[in-house]
Amino acid sequence: MPHKGFTLWFTGLSGAGKSTLANRLAQEFRQREYKVELLDGDEVRTHLSKGLGFSKEDRDTNVRRIGYVARLLSRNGVIAITAAISPYRDTRNEVRREHREFVEVYAEAPIEKLAERDVKGLYKKALAGEVKNFSGISDPYEPPLNAEVVVQTDRESVDESLDRILTYLEEKGFIDAEAPVAAGGY
Amino acid sequence: MPHKGFTLWFTGLSGAGKSTLANRLAQEFRQREYKVELLDGDEVRTHLSKGLGFSKEDRDTNVRRIGYVARLLSRNGVIAITAAISPYRDTRNEVRREHREFVEVYAEAPIEKLAERDVKGLYKKALAGEVKNFSGISDPYEPPLNAEVVVQTDRESVDESLDRILTYLEEKGFIDAEAPVAAGGY
Repeated sequence: MPHKGFTLWFTGLSGAGKSTLANRLAQEFRQREYKVELLDGDEVRTHLSKGLGFSKEDRDTNVRRIGYVARLLSRNGVIAITAAISPYRDTRNEVRREHREFVEVYAEAPIEKLAERDVKGLYKKALAGEVKNFSGISDPYEPPLNAEVVVQTDRESVDESLDRILTYLEEKGFIDAEAPVAAGGY
Repeated sequence: MPHKGFTLWFTGLSGAGKSTLANRLAQEFRQREYKVELLDGDEVRTHLSKGLGFSKEDRDTNVRRIGYVARLLSRNGVIAITAAISPYRDTRNEVRREHREFVEVYAEAPIEKLAERDVKGLYKKALAGEVKNFSGISDPYEPPLNAEVVVQTDRESVDESLDRILTYLEEKGFIDAEAPVAAGGY
């Protein structure tokens, strides 16, 4: 068995690198021929949560649905990777409790830096009051207190963050350590 | 490999036996230690479709969501069994097109018999006009034209219907034929 099923749950502010890391990990796992599904933004909004907005209630519904699907997948041996902001601690913990194997990864970066970088131009709008319910500005973001992995995406490169996540998963036996390339086989 | 992933999609009127058959099959597969998930009524309504009603649009959304989750599961080697009425042919076929392995089972029974038996008392209410959007009475039910299996639940026993479904799955290579019990091993 190269891996067991588990859910890798990213949380973090907009622009903190959740989707980038989630996509790179999914790619890495596919290369290793692991079973993996990525439940990210558009896909989830289209298939599970069309019509939901960004109120606390709607966000919680969205997070619970993603959690439900991730749970079905992970208990059947799939690596389910999610990348929703999932700003509310209690709701994330509720999803965690329903899982057997759950790894929370907090993509942490100071909001000042994210606002400065502002890849999608959303922080500018949020700070100008043009976007309502923006996590961390006009809406709460509750960081995890006991995430299995914290990656500091303002200070680490993507590769460094990836390495730290993979190392955690290997050390805890979620995935096999990559076999070192043998010099001459045997 | 004892089985490959596929979706077993029941369709049929209320009371036609979809849930009964779906539950029995899930039980049978679990006994064979297959990976199986049952996406049925309450579970789905709670986790995926809370707030949806019974208009065409809402039913279609419900069916598409179930289809999405079934697809994720089945393409990862799980047997996903669904048991929603799923009354609209086009929507079922849309779900089918998104699948690699899809087996539609039509639980067929004349509406007169279902109304007569009326296990949940719903037909009486629907015929009295007290239930709106009741498939087959105040709302359409479009039977499949090319279902892989048709079980005639008013004329067959549950065991007979089960046998026919299992035989189809074995013949088409979705599951292994049950090994006959050896008299003395070898």
